[in-house]
Amino acid sequence: MDDNRLLAPRTAGLQVSALREILKVANRPGMISLAGGIPAPESFPLPIMAELTRSVLSRYGAAALQYDATEGFGPLREALTGYLAAKGISAATDEILITSGSQGVLDAIGKILIGRGDEVAIEAPTYLGALQAFNPYGPRYVCLEADDQGVLPDSLERVLAAGRIKFIYLVPTFQNPTGRTIDLARRVRIAETLQRHDALLVEDDPYSELRYMGSDLPSIKSLAPDHVVYVGTFSKILAPGLRVGYCVAPEAIRRWLIISKQGVDLHTSTLGQALAGEYLSGGHLERQLPLIRDLYRPKLKAILSALARYLPGGFTWSKPEGGMFVWVEGIRGLDTSAFYRAAIERNAAFVPGKYFYPGPNQGLETMRLNFTMATEENIDRAVKRIAESAQDFHQVDLRALR
Amino acid sequence: MDDNRLLAPRTAGLQVSALREILKVANRPGMISLAGGIPAPESFPLPIMAELTRSVLSRYGAAALQYDATEGFGPLREALTGYLAAKGISAATDEILITSGSQGVLDAIGKILIGRGDEVAIEAPTYLGALQAFNPYGPRYVCLEADDQGVLPDSLERVLAAGRIKFIYLVPTFQNPTGRTIDLARRVRIAETLQRHDALLVEDDPYSELRYMGSDLPSIKSLAPDHVVYVGTFSKILAPGLRVGYCVAPEAIRRWLIISKQGVDLHTSTLGQALAGEYLSGGHLERQLPLIRDLYRPKLKAILSALARYLPGGFTWSKPEGGMFVWVEGIRGLDTSAFYRAAIERNAAFVPGKYFYPGPNQGLETMRLNFTMATEENIDRAVKRIAESAQDFHQVDLRALR
Repeated sequence: MDDNRLLAPRTAGLQVSALREILKVANRPGMISLAGGIPAPESFPLPIMAELTRSVLSRYGAAALQYDATEGFGPLREALTGYLAAKGISAATDEILITSGSQGVLDAIGKILIGRGDEVAIEAPTYLGALQAFNPYGPRYVCLEADDQGVLPDSLERVLAAGRIKFIYLVPTFQNPTGRTIDLARRVRIAETLQRHDALLVEDDPYSELRYMGSDLPSIKSLAPDHVVYVGTFSKILAPGLRVGYCVAPEAIRRWLIISKQGVDLHTSTLGQALAGEYLSGGHLERQLPLIRDLYRPKLKAILSALARYLPGGFTWSKPEGGMFVWVEGIRGLDTSAFYRAAIERNAAFVPGKYFYPGPNQGLETMRLNFTMATEENIDRAVKRIAESAQDFHQVDLRALR
Repeated sequence: MDDNRLLAPRTAGLQVSALREILKVANRPGMISLAGGIPAPESFPLPIMAELTRSVLSRYGAAALQYDATEGFGPLREALTGYLAAKGISAATDEILITSGSQGVLDAIGKILIGRGDEVAIEAPTYLGALQAFNPYGPRYVCLEADDQGVLPDSLERVLAAGRIKFIYLVPTFQNPTGRTIDLARRVRIAETLQRHDALLVEDDPYSELRYMGSDLPSIKSLAPDHVVYVGTFSKILAPGLRVGYCVAPEAIRRWLIISKQGVDLHTSTLGQALAGEYLSGGHLERQLPLIRDLYRPKLKAILSALARYLPGGFTWSKPEGGMFVWVEGIRGLDTSAFYRAAIERNAAFVPGKYFYPGPNQGLETMRLNFTMATEENIDRAVKRIAESAQDFHQVDLRALR
């Protein structure tokens, strides 16, 4: 069949992610991969999952296997109200919509809000999955300026003043890919700016529970509740394979998200939702979270100390207090893709940072390093090999910088 | 916030389904509902689910909880190749894409194929979930003519000859809502017509395993493999709450379905997929299917005999050999919505058939009756009450017909 005749115009805009190819290479045997973006399997509460399932099946019986409301499984939504209240987010059961991972929220947001050519304000670099969710609907991205403390509120102010932005998409805490966190003063200013311009923020928050040091910061949702779609997930605090996420959205948005979701997947797995609900209400999360943080804290320390030890001059990197990623920037003119292959040959993988930008030729000098999958020893080895690859490739340039 | 300013143009086309309200009323305590479209909870293999989960967790460990490939969980795709081969569908592991319910295929099909104003050929009435999946992308529906043996091949021929159809959507076996099945001779002609016009059929097949009498028919996919996206689901043979479906699509379509799915939900629940795979490969489906058929067969007999006993003259109905629905048609000019309220007051619920048509004022004289949820005794009672409501409301008209 002639697929070019069949495909909708929007389909040409769906690009095969080159990142997928990189991640395939990164999974080759013998490779130490800092390329992925997935939680360590040891972070899952595997030992209790069979018991959790038995408990859910005995509590809900066939209802755990039956069709359910598009909005979500009642007991999970109820458990989330308490969980969110403890995070400063006030949401009644009815205000919480369960989705198939946080990706499910992003797709629905794109579908109901983005008309072709509409402007969406983002950080650059940003979470690639959000771009993949939005792209089919044909947005035009407006990039907000940012530094190590995250988005500059003045930049948001300028962009909103132009009056054409449909919504803003941010990952304020331990961002993917940079690991950066927007500080408290900026959160307050961003919340105030959203309210003054009556603008909508999609606040994607998969990582805030993964804080290994420092103090929690309030979500922007808690500061401007009527102007934020808050997006959460169980992927990093329970298990990503269950594909259970959720959002708390202003009513006017939420009703359309539900209608959209009904056409996309009817509802999220009832069994997965019931397991997530039991995990919350049975006190399992409270017991598991300290274990997850204890697992990742030394890995974060290991990568930061390896970067300081091995990276040649001219490189800087983020110093996150949590999350899964560290962001490395080389001098202008450097192209990390150029020594990516050399690192692979040394059996160490990373992701060149350019893949996290919406446009071409952006962030060529950057790279994303994940620290949740490898052991501390392997993190040290991998950073050393990446540093050697960078140094070999740019030997003359980098020496000149010293 | 002003949501009208925020919403994309396509969003206005997403209609709140009035059917949802009907189904809410149908779930009131004391109601005997023939309105739903869901399998009986007794059809689920509830007793083995805890053991199945234990077995999956011990076989795959943390991999059953981890992120997985968008295409689907390997062991499930492998198990499906054998299952499909037994149904006459030849598909390699790589040709099978796992989705979040069959709804996930329909959404992806709409997204990659339908441009605004593109023509999609459908049966009318048809599965409402398909229309909900396609509508956001702005199709124009072209209705194929049909009779009790399903779509008329001549009608398909005429519609394809015009050369503007993007794809055809059919539920050839025990259709929702009519219960009708396209007979063998027509399947052969439809397959031949698809091939001659190089046209694409989306064959949605959730019910063919639910055959209580008569002989299996070949899928259209098995007759024209290069021109059909075959859509299957575990919702009726395992449990709908797991949200595991799949499709076998020509390569040119499949690669775009995968890219689309990546933006929508990354992948379907790994645990749900692992359970479905184990259910197939462990021989559990083989044991469960006869139980499911034995559960539903007497219910089908009960509804057909109650319809013959109670319905006043002027009504005709489909006589399916399987599935979940019987379709009732009154005389032209009748409006089943008119006595719907009276039936509800008698504690018997059905769905007026007009909700299953793409346009207004179609199928006013029809209704859909589900027979999988109620007991045989309750099916008899509900049909009696619906018949009484119809008779009371149209007393004069119906007497005049006798």
